[in-house]
Amino acid sequence: MRIAVVGSGALGLYYGSLLQRSGNEVHFLLRRDYESIMARGLSVYSLNGDFHLAHINGYRSTHEIREVDLVLICLKTFANEHFQALVTPLVGKNTRILTLQNGLGNEELLAELFGPEKIFGGVAFICAYRGNPGTVHHVSEGKINLGPLQSEQNLGVEIIKDLFTGAGINCRVVSDLKKARWEKLVWNIPFNGTCALLQQPVNAVLAHKGSRDLISAMMSEIITAANAQQLTEKIPFSLAENMVVSSEKLGSYQPSMLIDRIEGRPLELDAIFRVPLTEAYKHGIPMLRVQTLFALLQAAVAG
Amino acid sequence: MRIAVVGSGALGLYYGSLLQRSGNEVHFLLRRDYESIMARGLSVYSLNGDFHLAHINGYRSTHEIREVDLVLICLKTFANEHFQALVTPLVGKNTRILTLQNGLGNEELLAELFGPEKIFGGVAFICAYRGNPGTVHHVSEGKINLGPLQSEQNLGVEIIKDLFTGAGINCRVVSDLKKARWEKLVWNIPFNGTCALLQQPVNAVLAHKGSRDLISAMMSEIITAANAQQLTEKIPFSLAENMVVSSEKLGSYQPSMLIDRIEGRPLELDAIFRVPLTEAYKHGIPMLRVQTLFALLQAAVAG
Repeated sequence: MRIAVVGSGALGLYYGSLLQRSGNEVHFLLRRDYESIMARGLSVYSLNGDFHLAHINGYRSTHEIREVDLVLICLKTFANEHFQALVTPLVGKNTRILTLQNGLGNEELLAELFGPEKIFGGVAFICAYRGNPGTVHHVSEGKINLGPLQSEQNLGVEIIKDLFTGAGINCRVVSDLKKARWEKLVWNIPFNGTCALLQQPVNAVLAHKGSRDLISAMMSEIITAANAQQLTEKIPFSLAENMVVSSEKLGSYQPSMLIDRIEGRPLELDAIFRVPLTEAYKHGIPMLRVQTLFALLQAAVAG
Repeated sequence: MRIAVVGSGALGLYYGSLLQRSGNEVHFLLRRDYESIMARGLSVYSLNGDFHLAHINGYRSTHEIREVDLVLICLKTFANEHFQALVTPLVGKNTRILTLQNGLGNEELLAELFGPEKIFGGVAFICAYRGNPGTVHHVSEGKINLGPLQSEQNLGVEIIKDLFTGAGINCRVVSDLKKARWEKLVWNIPFNGTCALLQQPVNAVLAHKGSRDLISAMMSEIITAANAQQLTEKIPFSLAENMVVSSEKLGSYQPSMLIDRIEGRPLELDAIFRVPLTEAYKHGIPMLRVQTLFALLQAAVAG
């Protein structure tokens, strides 16, 4: 399959490299690591085994890539304003677009631009980061939960699932993409937000009773908001405590929003906070603790 | 009158110096600036006129001061655990104790130790800070609202009021000390907390819509909680917007909790957050935004 990877951060480089290794024709839109990857290829250090791809099809512009079968969108969501310019050259009549981005609103924005029948979402559970130029480190998990934006696109999602499974990626199709997105938000909102605001890793915010209890309470707010969204089935409140306990194993893990703050990038506040707060509010759930954290984060990065 | 000032920060030095200048026998418990003040006296730079006191009665221990007519308590509330040791040597049968400290719970703690009939509270509206050793700067306001802990101690509070008025301090007796304390919390909780957490001055947190709206919303939570406390009259919700607007004039003012954080001191979290949250919760008001800010502050200083 002819695939374009738009957004070659850790996520895009990792999944794109697996797709290339399994025999697909993968084209990467590169920015920061262009020179290095074109000269020396890409090294993947993964808990599933390290490998090196000597040759990468790298580009500075998607105009050079042209139409593909699948666009894999791994951009940071604060770059979503560039969707039209970046993605349009890649899209033909039969192109599918899969976004692995964080948070809410990405599929809908792509649907407005390219048509809802083309749009698929994947919720990626993975810890990965970029090391030196031309290297990517995959340190835990890697699973993707996939779903079409429109439930009638079952065939399309199965094709994507087979593609990913064939590349050795643990992957399943979920019946309710919206539910899968909200379930990930139950983790993403409190941990990304609290760690980024306090500039502390996961184990530090869990070590303190005040912030640990706050994280649990925010998780309950988010589950309440999610369950007001007409999901196919309710998210159980026990997910909160399970997530807190399993997060203890993450040690000094830095969520992506903390890394973005440390490295001086914008934060993914719209996708992880603003859109979920708006959707919750539309259904009568104010999520006051989440709102407070959001306001403080906005002021922290504006200041 | 024979007066002991316990806690010679900006507040204690400023009010104590005015009381001494107006002819009272004032004894200061000194710590940080002891050497400097004993050698060169105290210089007050005030918007009401600068003055210098060449001789200050300074002590390292309240045992040297012995019994006084009035104890003026200006300690940071995180030092309240030392009340018994510091204040006991100063208290005789007719001694009155006035706390000008921030937040809730100070009068009650003193009452347990020394008897409620001796205890008076003052809510000070003042911007003052210590400069070089032996100097204090009074930059705005200065008003004190005074009240007895027990309403039957009207005579005592009038005596204190006359003493302060005689020293040129703008001062009035309020009928409901609890209401006065909560009114000050409407400012103190959101501004001290937000500025200390974000390490930004007042104008920075007001410049950003997210944090400005959050401050207003927290003020409304606090007014709701205050009005559940059986006050003699309700606090109007218009106080919130009035306070936000008038705070714009404070410019880059750093609230005391921000200064405490910058200077590496403990924060006054019990008096300004924990006790008010507990009192609010007892009356069925959870103050979720305030609770969130409190949890984040605890984690920020623990981390």
